[in-house]
Amino acid sequence: MSDKLHFEDLVVGLTETFGAYPVTREEVIDFASKFDPQPFHLDDEAAKGSIFGRLAASGWHTSAITMRIMVDHRIGKYASVGGAGVDKLRWIKPVYPGDTLSVRATLRAKRRSKSRPDVGIIITDHETLNQHGEIVMTFESTAMVAVRDPSAPIDP
Amino acid sequence: MSDKLHFEDLVVGLTETFGAYPVTREEVIDFASKFDPQPFHLDDEAAKGSIFGRLAASGWHTSAITMRIMVDHRIGKYASVGGAGVDKLRWIKPVYPGDTLSVRATLRAKRRSKSRPDVGIIITDHETLNQHGEIVMTFESTAMVAVRDPSAPIDP
Repeated sequence: MSDKLHFEDLVVGLTETFGAYPVTREEVIDFASKFDPQPFHLDDEAAKGSIFGRLAASGWHTSAITMRIMVDHRIGKYASVGGAGVDKLRWIKPVYPGDTLSVRATLRAKRRSKSRPDVGIIITDHETLNQHGEIVMTFESTAMVAVRDPSAPIDP
Repeated sequence: MSDKLHFEDLVVGLTETFGAYPVTREEVIDFASKFDPQPFHLDDEAAKGSIFGRLAASGWHTSAITMRIMVDHRIGKYASVGGAGVDKLRWIKPVYPGDTLSVRATLRAKRRSKSRPDVGIIITDHETLNQHGEIVMTFESTAMVAVRDPSAPIDP
């Protein structure tokens, strides 16, 4: 992992926008069949009578796509240790087959772990956007990244 | 949707535990390949050197499985309108291939929507458990359920 970005390398406040993930009808139905088989995620007729108006992706699918975009464009460059949690996840607008999603991510804060000197904690704000630039989902994540020099003192 | 449980039918405080979802190695790798292609979710050797110790499911996969269990055992019985968001999602313990997951869900609160008389808002606490009864993930969700009698007054 030495060629990856470590905790020390990450710049608080940095915002990047990346990704162009095409949401296909096949994938919407496949994901919903496996994980969220509610009628408005599976069936055109049922979706017409729903608040979505037409077939829409599961919110958990949108979350998973957002993770894929993050791994491809950002987390994959990090010495990632793993995720800890997510807060304030909001499904703001429906995601439809034919949409193309991107992610705007901002590193909001970072700190060393007090219990694990080799790990840093990073807080990232995410906005998932459709091809019209509309925000369809937001969340903040807490994740762990390897520290390059665990012997360096931890700020109080 | 008239045979489904509506907002008026839902009992605040009710806790139910359900589901027995087998987490297979094939599904762990398939989900990670699509949505979270980090080495510790894909490759045995890489996972050995990670905090997981061995191949572990993506946290987003655990979330999706939890949704499936909820739809099969609870949300599928509701006149569900859609999800609004999630808070306090925490990945507490790794989920491994071979694990069997269940969900303990508690309806914590409900209220009528002020802007949409035909919709009720429900807050549900979720704990996802493995076959040892260990909590592997928790979150709270905010979701919408149809109101049977939208003409009934909304409490202030």
